[in-house]
Amino acid sequence: MKIRVIAPIILTTFNADILREVEQFTAPDVEVDVVNLSSGPASIESRLDDALATIDIMEKVKQSENEGFDGVFIDCFGDPGVDASRELVRIPVVGAFQPSVLTACLISGSFSIVTILQGLIPLVRENLRKLGVEGHVASIRSIETPVLELTDHEELQKRALSQVLKAIEDDGAEACVLGCTGMLGIASELAKKLREMGQSIPVIDPTAAAVGHLELLIRGGLSQSTVTYAEPPVKERK
Amino acid sequence: MKIRVIAPIILTTFNADILREVEQFTAPDVEVDVVNLSSGPASIESRLDDALATIDIMEKVKQSENEGFDGVFIDCFGDPGVDASRELVRIPVVGAFQPSVLTACLISGSFSIVTILQGLIPLVRENLRKLGVEGHVASIRSIETPVLELTDHEELQKRALSQVLKAIEDDGAEACVLGCTGMLGIASELAKKLREMGQSIPVIDPTAAAVGHLELLIRGGLSQSTVTYAEPPVKERK
Amino acid sequence: MKIRVIAPIILTTFNADILREVEQFTAPDVEVDVVNLSSGPASIESRLDDALATIDIMEKVKQSENEGFDGVFIDCFGDPGVDASRELVRIPVVGAFQPSVLTACLISGSFSIVTILQGLIPLVRENLRKLGVEGHVASIRSIETPVLELTDHEELQKRALSQVLKAIEDDGAEACVLGCTGMLGIASELAKKLREMGQSIPVIDPTAAAVGHLELLIRGGLSQSTVTYAEPPVKERK
Amino acid sequence: MKIRVIAPIILTTFNADILREVEQFTAPDVEVDVVNLSSGPASIESRLDDALATIDIMEKVKQSENEGFDGVFIDCFGDPGVDASRELVRIPVVGAFQPSVLTACLISGSFSIVTILQGLIPLVRENLRKLGVEGHVASIRSIETPVLELTDHEELQKRALSQVLKAIEDDGAEACVLGCTGMLGIASELAKKLREMGQSIPVIDPTAAAVGHLELLIRGGLSQSTVTYAEPPVKERK
Amino acid sequence: MKIRVIAPIILTTFNADILREVEQFTAPDVEVDVVNLSSGPASIESRLDDALATIDIMEKVKQSENEGFDGVFIDCFGDPGVDASRELVRIPVVGAFQPSVLTACLISGSFSIVTILQGLIPLVRENLRKLGVEGHVASIRSIETPVLELTDHEELQKRALSQVLKAIEDDGAEACVLGCTGMLGIASELAKKLREMGQSIPVIDPTAAAVGHLELLIRGGLSQSTVTYAEPPVKERK
Amino acid sequence: MKIRVIAPIILTTFNADILREVEQFTAPDVEVDVVNLSSGPASIESRLDDALATIDIMEKVKQSENEGFDGVFIDCFGDPGVDASRELVRIPVVGAFQPSVLTACLISGSFSIVTILQGLIPLVRENLRKLGVEGHVASIRSIETPVLELTDHEELQKRALSQVLKAIEDDGAEACVLGCTGMLGIASELAKKLREMGQSIPVIDPTAAAVGHLELLIRGGLSQSTVTYAEPPVKERK
Repeated sequence: MKIRVIAPIILTTFNADILREVEQFTAPDVEVDVVNLSSGPASIESRLDDALATIDIMEKVKQSENEGFDGVFIDCFGDPGVDASRELVRIPVVGAFQPSVLTACLISGSFSIVTILQGLIPLVRENLRKLGVEGHVASIRSIETPVLELTDHEELQKRALSQVLKAIEDDGAEACVLGCTGMLGIASELAKKLREMGQSIPVIDPTAAAVGHLELLIRGGLSQSTVTYAEPPVKERK
Repeated sequence: MKIRVIAPIILTTFNADILREVEQFTAPDVEVDVVNLSSGPASIESRLDDALATIDIMEKVKQSENEGFDGVFIDCFGDPGVDASRELVRIPVVGAFQPSVLTACLISGSFSIVTILQGLIPLVRENLRKLGVEGHVASIRSIETPVLELTDHEELQKRALSQVLKAIEDDGAEACVLGCTGMLGIASELAKKLREMGQSIPVIDPTAAAVGHLELLIRGGLSQSTVTYAEPPVKERK
Repeated sequence: MKIRVIAPIILTTFNADILREVEQFTAPDVEVDVVNLSSGPASIESRLDDALATIDIMEKVKQSENEGFDGVFIDCFGDPGVDASRELVRIPVVGAFQPSVLTACLISGSFSIVTILQGLIPLVRENLRKLGVEGHVASIRSIETPVLELTDHEELQKRALSQVLKAIEDDGAEACVLGCTGMLGIASELAKKLREMGQSIPVIDPTAAAVGHLELLIRGGLSQSTVTYAEPPVKERK
Repeated sequence: MKIRVIAPIILTTFNADILREVEQFTAPDVEVDVVNLSSGPASIESRLDDALATIDIMEKVKQSENEGFDGVFIDCFGDPGVDASRELVRIPVVGAFQPSVLTACLISGSFSIVTILQGLIPLVRENLRKLGVEGHVASIRSIETPVLELTDHEELQKRALSQVLKAIEDDGAEACVLGCTGMLGIASELAKKLREMGQSIPVIDPTAAAVGHLELLIRGGLSQSTVTYAEPPVKERK
Repeated sequence: MKIRVIAPIILTTFNADILREVEQFTAPDVEVDVVNLSSGPASIESRLDDALATIDIMEKVKQSENEGFDGVFIDCFGDPGVDASRELVRIPVVGAFQPSVLTACLISGSFSIVTILQGLIPLVRENLRKLGVEGHVASIRSIETPVLELTDHEELQKRALSQVLKAIEDDGAEACVLGCTGMLGIASELAKKLREMGQSIPVIDPTAAAVGHLELLIRGGLSQSTVTYAEPPVKERK
Repeated sequence: MKIRVIAPIILTTFNADILREVEQFTAPDVEVDVVNLSSGPASIESRLDDALATIDIMEKVKQSENEGFDGVFIDCFGDPGVDASRELVRIPVVGAFQPSVLTACLISGSFSIVTILQGLIPLVRENLRKLGVEGHVASIRSIETPVLELTDHEELQKRALSQVLKAIEDDGAEACVLGCTGMLGIASELAKKLREMGQSIPVIDPTAAAVGHLELLIRGGLSQSTVTYAEPPVKERK
């Protein structure tokens, strides 16, 4: 099985880390490949970034199908270009948002999402409404750290822990979803720390959920519905 | 008051009709201006079209603000680029979907949407969920006619009437929203015909609702929330 | 276009202020006229007041249609008599609640309502449920000031600001609806103050939203559905 | 225990039947008393009727408390005046709508309401939304018979049976609520007939549900919340 | 009328108190009888306890029908075995959860539930979702006291009062449901204390609501729907 | 990775088929093992069956953890014993219902469930409500075939196809979930047939979804929340 990961940004800096993160959650028969965008934003933190990235994401998803990949993971919690790409190919396409939120619904009754910026909360809520599971969400919290500053691992860890604890104590969170795929490699550490503090709840790494759902679809011979995501009519587009 | 209408397609064929349609619903002190896209699709009938159009829509919306317009109407029932553009300007931006659906909520308890293609029904439903008013919708129906074939006025009229009648009789529709801004100039005729048939319900022309809401916002000194639609952070985008 | 404003109370004290407030939001071709109730309460702050006012409101709405008005605005956030009056006439009838809440849905993803008395919160929530948009409401707050004490403009301003700030900080409000049409002339000042404090969100004056929706309906040739608001059967009523 | 039944109409024709219907469902220690309105409509079939009836209902409810009754049943499926009256007294006040719908929620997962006129369906749906249980309703159907023609017992029976069967077969109803308290004495016959036809579902007589809930509240020392139904502020009302 | 109360635990210690509690809320013509489980848990505080109790509850419910009882009350706020037992008999079966929550919906617009243990909150929320009334709940709070320690009446009273006050002040509760049938005999005292403190809201004793609903069903000739709770097919079970 | 499949019935007849079905969807590093119940029903088609099976399921789940399995799949669309077992172990436990419904939410906007018996529809709907995704369901349909008669592969295929086609045409289903894990080996054939008929929608085999989610949880180091599924307090249980 061959999976293509599209890091929907123009920076290649994170590719090695992304590959490591993804491979940690894949079965032994899964080959993974990471590509970036040729044009688009340096990170995705607004609807503007989403729109800019979507154009090249669609291109890259079509290429992935042509090159024989079995499925595509668009590696961002905002699910940029996911819906549009699904119209263009028959192989399954997933982002990080839907898989991680659905996983949270599976293992808890009420969960929080910890994202990176206050300004993204309305976007997360919009996506929750579109998916119809807003009623399961205890809170959406932010660590106030832009994507490109997530590299200070220790600081990231600290801020995320602080927000998860507030989600548990103030909002009644019974599980937590990390709301940015750039929060690389901290889910298991966070979970461990929470256990030690006697506040154990599952911490869902969005990459784990995304890759797991993609494998599930491929092994089950499944893909997005061609009724929900109908092939676009042929016409002039320039 | 100066309103810019963006017909989010590359064809200029409909501009005169659009202008006539819009001016029919504006107050005497409103100046209207219609522009098209420089690049994008010939019509919007898929998420692909929406994504392609959004890039130039954002540009045109920014220009409109720079040129001193008081508000922008993106003239399409799919609300393409509406959310993204709202992040970029302080003047109000509306599409046709949200205003017409909210108008239907104001004047009826349960309404149907009659759109142009079966394949658009999932998109309309997604937008309803995002807006949170799915519970008010009796049905979403289609006349199975692509945008570029809407020009046969009589045929359009006939097909729309047939679907509206089914919506009333089979689905219990108490009002009807025309689900494509390309259904120009038929709302009042339809309403009249329904009255004559003893099946009178309001037929909402999406252009009327959009322009009315835009005027309302401008006269009320209102615009989209800068919290819901936060200004995108500065960063590299190519 | 001629619009009738019904101030659904027996006091005429506010009429000049109401007229000024309304005219500030109307297009140049709109003639406005304000009338009061012959019998009813001094202000509307309970279901009792609503019931008492409704009888004469229905009368006044019917008169308005007979006198050739194009639409009626029942000037109260509780929408007293709106539903009942809609059964009796073919011209559009709006209150202040539905238009302002729907406007808030258009320009924000989550908003708060600031009303005047704690005891009105359950009524506002009931109306939200009836309209089906309860999921969009961050909170309903009160300034604890009866209608007839709203005349101390400065105190009103101060209390409203304090509640709006709490709505933003504690409840995550992304827009705010003033939940009483007696809060005359403070929306724009409040919005300005919030901007200066770096907490800018839209503040919706319910009068602006109501008048705008009424114009929209009239210019669009629309009115309440005669299916939703069916004409009452003829029978003995004494 | 003394219960006052208010038949919220000016006709006294049905009082004996109403008394018989109510007493059939009360415990041996319950004294029942039926009164009519001095002014109001001949029957309640619109929001207009509801508004007209409410004025005298409020008066009669206050009297009931003064005369020492333990609770009041406003005998109509539209719950006219229920909310307003609850503000005025400390004894429990129920209509027929809320108790019968809540009873249907208790004994089934999805139920239909069979009311008397097409034009009442939007009112029933509004009340369902206000109560928040719209999701449990399979359908709202009508037998198209005005209140004052419900006296032909056999015809009523036949029409109701026909609609209940459609509710079961077409809408998946698992229980049925009779949506008018004027459908006197047919619930048990209907249930029997359905059993004989191998289509047994519970048929809820709204009077049974209303009286049962009222007894429940009185024996439990309970009444409507004085927070939800706050006492109206003192002021001028004429 | 003969009602069987099943205390779904193996301890008989509470039976006299339960009988007193139940009889306080029944009509004079109601005979009450309390039985315990032969096998099961000492109290019900988890899904494990629920599952263990259900086996014998089903047996006891069938016996009750065979012995000629008119209805069964399974005396626990978790509604253990209620759904399964309803498949096995034609007499009505109620637990304490559904009746008390529906009663709260009848007399208030937003209410809180005060249960005994933090660990039960997810179970209560699950039951609210299943019943479809989650939107009416202001909060679910816990007094952190296991069932078998509820016997210290004064301490119980104190802790419950403290949580109810928080529900009122912090969560906006307009009524309160005691979320454990083991909280015997404190509802009316709590209500009285709240009144004295100027914070009066209804306090619903789950036993009162359960018994009242059971009487309502029996007097109304009603029982659970045999479509919702279909008779299990005959087959091998060992 | 070692996965235990619990076929929650006393018959061993299906074990070989179950094993084949499961292994078809697992990664190469997954070892699978199937066990049956020592006591319980021959099949699960009612709440009674669910309750009877749950006792031994809990035992078998605990054993699985003790024997070093990494996760458990309770192989039934009714999710019997899933919630109760989750309280008892730290390894992840899944049934077939939640995983397949969440998968349908991932790949479609509106889906139907095709189950085996009319009498199970209320149970499926209850589980949908508990999971909070009822709004995504176009319909629940039944092929009217008891579990133990599902062995006639051709007949099963035919009946399922007929219901799926109705779901597509009458209910607007955009994907389909097979609502019984006993519908072994027909999903891919059904999907193929639908494609040939020009009615292609995804057909979700509940086993594929269940196993995929279980792998996802195990590889992601995740399990059910110990807050949502708290460990039962220690006490007497007999």
